[in-house]
Amino acid sequence: MPPIQIALVGVGKIVRDQHLPAIAKNGDYRLIAAASRHGTVDGIDNFKSIEAMLEAVPAIDAVSLCMPPQYRYEAARTALEAGKHVFLEKPPGATLSEVADLEALAASKGLSLFASWHSRYAPAVEAARSFLAATTIRDVKIVWKEDVRQWHPNQEWIWAAGGLGIFDPGINALSIVTHILPRPVFITAATLEFPENRDAPIAATIAFTDADKLAVSAEFDWRQTGKQSWDIIAQTSAGEMVLSEGGAKLSIDGKIVHEEPEQEYPMLYKRFAEIIRAKTSDVDLAPLRHVADAFMLGRRKFVEAFHD
Amino acid sequence: MPPIQIALVGVGKIVRDQHLPAIAKNGDYRLIAAASRHGTVDGIDNFKSIEAMLEAVPAIDAVSLCMPPQYRYEAARTALEAGKHVFLEKPPGATLSEVADLEALAASKGLSLFASWHSRYAPAVEAARSFLAATTIRDVKIVWKEDVRQWHPNQEWIWAAGGLGIFDPGINALSIVTHILPRPVFITAATLEFPENRDAPIAATIAFTDADKLAVSAEFDWRQTGKQSWDIIAQTSAGEMVLSEGGAKLSIDGKIVHEEPEQEYPMLYKRFAEIIRAKTSDVDLAPLRHVADAFMLGRRKFVEAFHD
Repeated sequence: MPPIQIALVGVGKIVRDQHLPAIAKNGDYRLIAAASRHGTVDGIDNFKSIEAMLEAVPAIDAVSLCMPPQYRYEAARTALEAGKHVFLEKPPGATLSEVADLEALAASKGLSLFASWHSRYAPAVEAARSFLAATTIRDVKIVWKEDVRQWHPNQEWIWAAGGLGIFDPGINALSIVTHILPRPVFITAATLEFPENRDAPIAATIAFTDADKLAVSAEFDWRQTGKQSWDIIAQTSAGEMVLSEGGAKLSIDGKIVHEEPEQEYPMLYKRFAEIIRAKTSDVDLAPLRHVADAFMLGRRKFVEAFHD
Repeated sequence: MPPIQIALVGVGKIVRDQHLPAIAKNGDYRLIAAASRHGTVDGIDNFKSIEAMLEAVPAIDAVSLCMPPQYRYEAARTALEAGKHVFLEKPPGATLSEVADLEALAASKGLSLFASWHSRYAPAVEAARSFLAATTIRDVKIVWKEDVRQWHPNQEWIWAAGGLGIFDPGINALSIVTHILPRPVFITAATLEFPENRDAPIAATIAFTDADKLAVSAEFDWRQTGKQSWDIIAQTSAGEMVLSEGGAKLSIDGKIVHEEPEQEYPMLYKRFAEIIRAKTSDVDLAPLRHVADAFMLGRRKFVEAFHD
């Protein structure tokens, strides 16, 4: 099978750290172009805009869109209209409605659209899912606490309206939880803490339940210094399950049962090639829908101003 | 065909004003029971809870759920589990995710779920839709301004988190707009004004667009005294279209072309009977999805405290 000729749009930190190495070691792809206002990729043709790139390089089969979510719709639409398959970094868009529109467009054109959730491909996620499927779950706690100054230094877009604030990392937790739990959950209450000088929340507490009244709680906080936590803890009939380090490590009753080096982006590109070959799409909006639900249902609380 | 034996849950103002008269004059239905913590309906069996009612009256085929949205999921799930068709007042739930869950449950049980949007059945809405389908639209303005003290006096739930505030009437506008425009729209920017003593917004301004870059703006305001406005105004290649009075009246270039007495709830019950006979559901979440998108993407602004 000939390789998928792929192009990158929005060349920033995540592209250099993750997308380029993942594409380089996957024989299903050949990277042939990139478009970015500021960044470039060595050894291939670079353009200032996706329009210029698609015009100049008709051989492109697929594009990966890695710019901030507020700009993703336009680029995705342009690519789909030009007949290209589209990989969307997370979150897939600034609104649910625009992604629904892209999904319909991809379907009408017979193209593949991939709303990627990299944390779902963390090494221990499938093992956690299998473990939970075979137990009775009593309750679930999600603790996602990190230091925004360390992970997102001076990223102004993340604090703007639509930048999602603490939900930018929190949506990773939601992408895992919506995959490993046996039934769909929904939010019953939430509190969002906004720094008085910012348009996006710095912390949130959320209560979920499901059709069987399972209690699921989440604490998201960007003010965590010292030890960082990306943990999902379930009390079950088969013991306490701790899925930690963002899905990398699984312990049952304190004993490590699964720990492997992470391969999230290689797995994402494997999945994207699969759906292109199978002529399908993979667009699960549940994680973003929970974020929207939290903003709609949640109580707003104002806290101390945040300065980088 | 035997009539659909129907029951009402949550007997308040909207039930007395709209549901009871609409059911009474529709031969497709026989109203046989009601459940409500406070209200009762004369001439039928009344219960304090939906559980007690379903237990005592197995002949019920369908239920209409008219309590505040925060309590609707539980009742809907109970009814579907008991094998009953379900009519949901607007908005269909407190979150998108819970309604998605109900939709899946109804489908798995072969039951009809109806997420009703009464304003879509306002008399001139279909005429507006037909008019717009035959023109080129230049821009659209939605102006939904009413006096909350007149329409929602002392309704505390509407100001609570999850009560939606100004989006409770605003979602009526969104239910019309999503029906009459030729392509799906999505929000690009929004500002939500919260009274400093309330958890729900009193006003909002929203900018939408669509795949063809149509400019659609909305102004929602609950502080309007004097003349009330529920208008959708479109500049088109065939003149200025004004859909006013919440969808009741249509004018083109100032000339009234459609004005009839409203029949919104009779039409809703007609539609519900249709989907029950056809064994389908009718759940369009687009209006609620836009509200969630506005909360997620919108900038929050704080304004003067509001007291009833």
